[in-house]
Amino acid sequence: MNAEILAGKLVKGIAPNIDAKDLLNDKRKVFLFGSPSYTNIGDQAIAYAEEKFIKNHFPYYEYVEIMDYATEEGIKLVKEIIKEDDIVCFTGGGNLGSLYLEIEEDRRKVFEVFKDYKTISLPQSVYFEDTEEGNLEKQKSQDAYHKNRHLTIAARESQTLEVVKNTFNSNVIYTPDMVLSLDIVPKELKRDGVLFILRADKEKVTDEDFITDLMKWSEKIGPVDRTDTVLSEVDTIDYDEREKYFLEMLEKIGSSKIVITDRLHAMVFSIITNTPCLVFGNSYGKAKHSYTDWLDELNFIEYTDTQDIGELERLVEKLMKAEPNRVHLAEDFQPLKDFFKN
Amino acid sequence: MNAEILAGKLVKGIAPNIDAKDLLNDKRKVFLFGSPSYTNIGDQAIAYAEEKFIKNHFPYYEYVEIMDYATEEGIKLVKEIIKEDDIVCFTGGGNLGSLYLEIEEDRRKVFEVFKDYKTISLPQSVYFEDTEEGNLEKQKSQDAYHKNRHLTIAARESQTLEVVKNTFNSNVIYTPDMVLSLDIVPKELKRDGVLFILRADKEKVTDEDFITDLMKWSEKIGPVDRTDTVLSEVDTIDYDEREKYFLEMLEKIGSSKIVITDRLHAMVFSIITNTPCLVFGNSYGKAKHSYTDWLDELNFIEYTDTQDIGELERLVEKLMKAEPNRVHLAEDFQPLKDFFKN
Repeated sequence: MNAEILAGKLVKGIAPNIDAKDLLNDKRKVFLFGSPSYTNIGDQAIAYAEEKFIKNHFPYYEYVEIMDYATEEGIKLVKEIIKEDDIVCFTGGGNLGSLYLEIEEDRRKVFEVFKDYKTISLPQSVYFEDTEEGNLEKQKSQDAYHKNRHLTIAARESQTLEVVKNTFNSNVIYTPDMVLSLDIVPKELKRDGVLFILRADKEKVTDEDFITDLMKWSEKIGPVDRTDTVLSEVDTIDYDEREKYFLEMLEKIGSSKIVITDRLHAMVFSIITNTPCLVFGNSYGKAKHSYTDWLDELNFIEYTDTQDIGELERLVEKLMKAEPNRVHLAEDFQPLKDFFKN
Repeated sequence: MNAEILAGKLVKGIAPNIDAKDLLNDKRKVFLFGSPSYTNIGDQAIAYAEEKFIKNHFPYYEYVEIMDYATEEGIKLVKEIIKEDDIVCFTGGGNLGSLYLEIEEDRRKVFEVFKDYKTISLPQSVYFEDTEEGNLEKQKSQDAYHKNRHLTIAARESQTLEVVKNTFNSNVIYTPDMVLSLDIVPKELKRDGVLFILRADKEKVTDEDFITDLMKWSEKIGPVDRTDTVLSEVDTIDYDEREKYFLEMLEKIGSSKIVITDRLHAMVFSIITNTPCLVFGNSYGKAKHSYTDWLDELNFIEYTDTQDIGELERLVEKLMKAEPNRVHLAEDFQPLKDFFKN
């Protein structure tokens, strides 16, 4: 394909991160499908971290993103330019399974179409509902994934590792969530108040009455605010705006005295910004297991299932008094480095 | 200043790494002066690593490079847009002192002009010749640097640390060479032959007759090639081409069975690419001290002053047999992270 033909086939959302002409250079390509345009800042931060990971560790590869809304056209174009040695990725997150079917359907398509290429599902939490519909979707995913004998699935916590082993015949590797591969120095910000970051989606299990009690109780610490890591003030976040929104969320979290959340990435952003954080669960335990698998040595972050206000009060005080420590997870990404190396 | 006035003042070499409009955004700015356009791939790699360092650890800063050939115009422009909180850097390397006066004069100018701002000389080796002219140049540098009470000088080996303490009143920090902050996964390449990478400049001390003997002796390992990390086939390397030339050099080194060199960065590139490397000294010990300070635990890299062929033969065999190990220097860059944080 020459540059002119290529230009005719490019649509918005294909390769927003590079000069289009570099689609045709000699470098080994790493294609990322499913790059999110929706406003979940957790998933945006994952895509941000994925790009850093490849660019820092493998600068000699050409990293090419395909936005989620351009999956169809992206598949068509990549089919024409992909070379034997290239690598196909689908972005990480907590959406592999039956809960986010639009994304799952794109993932199946990508794994099936590129079945002859080295393929990876970047670090995910996996959950198929134990219902008739959930089982049906699991079967569809198995059928699609199993056509690809070159597929590796990266599990980001131990619960998912077991699910993947029991569900798919694919290779499986085990690493933390991609956002934990970032090494951002926390900005020193003036802190005030308590920030509740709470789900409003199908994974929500925290009781609203309990939240109301907790918010009332929190007023003794300072002004109380409630938000979510899924933004509602914008409809989409495209590649160019990703860093801006991610950094704004870090700034918001880093300006709080403590975060109380049922969001995995609110916990992760709290770690990045040295912000004390109390974490409750979601419907299938992805925050809980990420915490117990990788993060339970952190003295300023704590997972809990209790709804006892007295117990929570003690926890919050402990977290706010801690001099934030660090866990070192760089080595835990070695399986992912090894995957991309070969 | 508005965007229109700014556009009128921009010349090639100012802010080649960002959209010009971002010179006027609200972010805290980190200005890098002295960004090299000359063809020393060691210095190019340093600038590459400096950019990665700031972008990875401080994504909330705006990092602005000023190419060496645009120093005058860059100073003028930065004077107009700099804010109280911004940070001024001069690039690292092995050129602080009396050997590379064109660069030293730019450095003096930058430190003097921005004397009221947080300022840093990124990790350098420092060397003023012990001659009348050397002492005169030292005096000029002292005069310029000492006008800036906000100046920090980063020394990249212990010898330089002592020189800086004895020469300047500035703050001093101690970290490895910036290129050692990169975390590139070595490409697996087919290796062949012996690559000599040797200086042809005023720092050269390795005897040509000895080199001839050594090259002859090396033929038993494989084809022998001689090159330098300073390219002669091009006149300049601008910002846009930096990564390409750096990666080409890594590829060349990573395709060799062993590297024999008197270049600090040929040693560093050998470390990055897992290539056995035997290192000789330069005129004032910067490779030697970088090795003994940070790198002597590496089993596939060795510094030597011997010219005894039998002894060298034993060393080369040992290096080529070693299963390359790693040193972990990430923590050693903490003083630099602390500098930029505040």
